[in-house]
Formats: sequence, C-alpha cells, structure tokens
Amino acid sequence: MSNTNTVAVIGTGVIGNGWIGRFLAQGQDVIAFDPAEGAEERTRNVVAQVWPELEKLGLAEGASQDRLTFVSTLEEAVQSADFIQENVPEREDIKKSVLTSIDQHAKPDAIVGSSTSGITATTLQEGLQHPGRVIVAHPFNPVYILPLVELVGGRATDDVQMERAKAFYQSIQMKPLVIKKEIEGHVADRLMEALWREALHLVNDGIVTTEEADAAIIYGAGLRWAQMGPFLTFHLAGGEQGMRHMLEQFGPALKKPWTKLEAPELTKDLKEKVIEGCESHAGDVPISELEDKRNEFLVKLLDLVEDYWPQSKI
Amino acid sequence: MSNTNTVAVIGTGVIGNGWIGRFLAQGQDVIAFDPAEGAEERTRNVVAQVWPELEKLGLAEGASQDRLTFVSTLEEAVQSADFIQENVPEREDIKKSVLTSIDQHAKPDAIVGSSTSGITATTLQEGLQHPGRVIVAHPFNPVYILPLVELVGGRATDDVQMERAKAFYQSIQMKPLVIKKEIEGHVADRLMEALWREALHLVNDGIVTTEEADAAIIYGAGLRWAQMGPFLTFHLAGGEQGMRHMLEQFGPALKKPWTKLEAPELTKDLKEKVIEGCESHAGDVPISELEDKRNEFLVKLLDLVEDYWPQSKI
Repeated sequence: MSNTNTVAVIGTGVIGNGWIGRFLAQGQDVIAFDPAEGAEERTRNVVAQVWPELEKLGLAEGASQDRLTFVSTLEEAVQSADFIQENVPEREDIKKSVLTSIDQHAKPDAIVGSSTSGITATTLQEGLQHPGRVIVAHPFNPVYILPLVELVGGRATDDVQMERAKAFYQSIQMKPLVIKKEIEGHVADRLMEALWREALHLVNDGIVTTEEADAAIIYGAGLRWAQMGPFLTFHLAGGEQGMRHMLEQFGPALKKPWTKLEAPELTKDLKEKVIEGCESHAGDVPISELEDKRNEFLVKLLDLVEDYWPQSKI
Repeated sequence: MSNTNTVAVIGTGVIGNGWIGRFLAQGQDVIAFDPAEGAEERTRNVVAQVWPELEKLGLAEGASQDRLTFVSTLEEAVQSADFIQENVPEREDIKKSVLTSIDQHAKPDAIVGSSTSGITATTLQEGLQHPGRVIVAHPFNPVYILPLVELVGGRATDDVQMERAKAFYQSIQMKPLVIKKEIEGHVADRLMEALWREALHLVNDGIVTTEEADAAIIYGAGLRWAQMGPFLTFHLAGGEQGMRHMLEQFGPALKKPWTKLEAPELTKDLKEKVIEGCESHAGDVPISELEDKRNEFLVKLLDLVEDYWPQSKI
C-alpha cells in the first residue's frame, strides 16, 4: 500500500469516529457508512472538535477533514477501499452479517480490520469467501491519539495480509501489537479488566471512593506505567539486580489474598456508587470539556514518552 | 508541626533512601539509622544522584543534602525527632521489635509512620505504650518523586495524630490517601497486584513477552491512567452519559472469563521468562541510567498532571 489509501469505516460510534479522526489526520481518503440518523453530522462535529489536537500531534501531508465522504450503503463504502475498518455493535450476529456483506462487495485483497474487543478473528472469519484478509484490529479510546492497536489473526489469516495490516497501521503512526494466540479479550483489556475488577471490589467494600481509587493510580503506579509498563517498572524497583531481585523479594506476595479473585456483582448499589463517584469527581465540567483536556494532556504526554522511552521495539 | 521538622529515618534501603531524598528536598533535618555496613555512603550517593531532579521539582527553602546526619544507634536517631519513618525489612517480627524500641525512645507525641506494604497498623501497634501515634504510611518508588502515600490507622490510632500525619505529608508535597478501613495490601498495591497477576499469566501462557505486555499498557491505558485513573477514564469512554452508559454497555463483560482468577505459580520457567524479558528489553543500559531517565520523565509528567488535572481533592 502507498501512504495514501482509500479507507472505509463501517459504523461511526465513538470508536468508528476515533478511527476517522486518525485516518484523516494521517492523510487518508475516508469513506464512511453508518445507517443511524444524524451519523454524518455527529462524525463531522467530533472530527472538527479534535482537529486542533491532531494538528499538534502532526498532520500528514495533504491531510484534510474534507477528505471524508459519507455514503448511504455499505456496498458503496467498501467497493473501492484498500482498507476497511469495521466498528459495528459488539454482537456476534451483527458483526458476522456485516462482515459477510463486506466480504462480498470489497476488492478481494482489501484488508478488513475489526475493532472488536471480545470476538475472535477465527469466529469472524467463519463462512467468508476471503477469510485470509480478516483480522482483529482492536484500538483504544481516544483512537485518534492513543497509538496502541492489537492485531490478532484467526485460523484462516494469511501471514502476508497480517504483515500488510501491520505496515498500514504503522504508517498511520500506530503501535501495532501482534498477538500470537487468540485469547478472549485480547491482552490490554484483560490487564485493564483485572485492575478494574479489583477497583470495583474496593469501592463495593467501602474501602475507597472512585475518586480515591483513581488517585491511588494517578499519583503512584499510573505515572510509571505510562512510561514503562508493569514489568519494566518492577525491573527498576529491584535495584541493580532488577527483576531477579524483585521476584525473590516480592514473588511470595503473589500468594497472599491481596486481590479478590472473582468479579463483584454489579448490584444497583454498586452501580450507583460508581456513577455518583465519577459524576461528583467530574463536577460541573461537561464531558466534552473533560475530553478536550484529556486530549491536550495525552498529546503532550505522548511527546514525553517518545523523548524518554523511544527504544520500544513494538 | 512547623514546616521544618527533625525527621528520623529508620532503615535505609531503596524505600528509606527514597524518603531521605524527599525529606531533604523539602527542607527537613534528617537523622538516619541503619546497622548495615556502608549504609551511609550508599544513601549519600543515592541522594546526590537524584538531587538534580529534585531541584527541577523544586526544593524547599533551605533544603540541603548537608542536613542529613547518620547516627549509630536507633535511640540517638529517634530521641529528638518530631516525625519517624520506619522502613526496616517487611517481616512482622523485625518491624514489631524496631517499633517497640522507637516507642521507648521517641518523644511521646512524635508521629511514627511505617512504610509497610503488607502489615496492618493494628498489628504494628500491639503492645506499644503510645500506639495512638503509629500509622501505616506506605509510599511508592521512587519516593522522592511519586506523591502518593497511603495512610492507614489501626484500632488504636488517634484521629488527631492521623490529622497531624496527613498535614505533615502534605507539607512535603505528597498526596496522602487516607484509607478508611484496614485491608491487606492497602489499596494501590492491590490494584497493581491484580494487573500484575494477569500480566504474569499472559507471559506464562505464551501470549505475549514482558515487553509486549508493557507496550499494551504504555500505549493504551497507561497514558490515560496517569492522568485520571481507571474510573474517570471509563467515565469519559461512556460518551455524554459517562459512567452510566459505560456500565450498561460494558458491565456484562465483567462476567466473561477475561481474566485468570488465580495467581499463576511462579515456576522457575516463568521466573526466567520474566527476568530475561526485562533484561532483554532494558538492553545494555545499566539500571542507574534507566532510573535517571525515569526520574527526568516523571518530573515532567508530574508537571503535566498538575497543569491538566489539578482539581483532585486528595
């Protein structure tokens, strides 16, 4: 693929719109389809809102919001696309039906990436005519800023297509993490989910408020994880002997009952606690304003990570 | 307490030395005691190494590395101290014996903070003459930069002393999180441990390398958690409806088998995988150089968090 491709985006919710922002900023031609009323207006508003941050991150040559076209059928959207990103609701029946249509109308060598967080590529490929070019390509919100995308092939995935997909996502300034085995929830969501479950337990048991749980991450581990993740963080905590010393000293704590092993029941009470905690923490600031602040912050933080930790191989 | 106190630091390993760096940078007089050979030299080297970063963070008036004194007995260290920070090895018998000596020799109203990650304040207070001033004050590595300190009282803790302790830690530019109930591992370590267990499973099962697991955090959730923690991050991911929508849409995923529920066995194989993963990721760069880079990064990141997310109430 050249640096300029025609990219089709199917489904324009939060994730689909995030992809559109990234694709446009990276100089791609984007054709979008979503059957929902008002979808085009919502997408154009989102892209306009975040464009100043995308400019700060750096636009590709020729990047323009005008290179977005909305069309009224899936067939029109995918027929000329080099690359197709599917972001329809997270239900197996809906995903499979949409992927079947894509399979029928797309060029045979167009790559199809699904943003699914919970369905495997092997499942998505079942019954397709060209299953070899279908992969999971799972991004993180906000997609137009966060560089991580998890790529997972299914049983039918063609290695060459996976390489092409990886090169494409790299060309739009992403960090593709190719996951070698299919596993429910992929990798990043499993890590997040583990922390999230324990956080819910702590709130449920009245140990902390949601705001306090957030602070326990922000002012401690979160600052380190943003730079080097959990493993290298512990490597540095082990002194000159690194991880070797760390595992000797703290390995046994793994067996302590420090974490609840099961997910808590999402009772009405727990739900309300969590919702009220977040609403009160956010105060009167509308979500859109919080998003602007988050985006400005992330753009600067990404620069920092790049300056101080550029040697990551993925 | 005034802004200048005499602070005793008992035990000068990684955590004790981290405290010393912070106390000195915040203009405190520090008296240290550690029976290990060469302890004073190691401490002075660590403090000198990190001092440039502490200057960037901002030194308090009169702050000086010269305000550190090493003494040769615990009694000498604590007798004139307003505040005592205990950092001896994480074993209940050692901690209790040291705390009994501190209790005998310290001024009755000196506050005693223990850096323990895994022992409760109630346990530490047992049998002491002045248990009301003993609290858990659990910091995070590197202590001279990361602002989080978890404060947990025991059954005997005096509310007035807890308030004094909180004010003291705030005065040295920390974010004290007062935890209302005693719980094993406190809060932040439980959250970290949950993620850590799952990360170990993913490595153990051959899904990712340690470096890939780190990347899955760095380029995705880590960037967001450093700013707003897990709850507010999800609040923003829910769109205009915030956490309410988030829980409706993704709540059911809690019940999916996305995370291993038990800690993995730390087999020799898994240990080696983790150690080699970290060593290969770090390459030829010595740990001390990685630490310098980490520190420079964290100082800038803290400025960013302060600029973009100053309204946290803790």
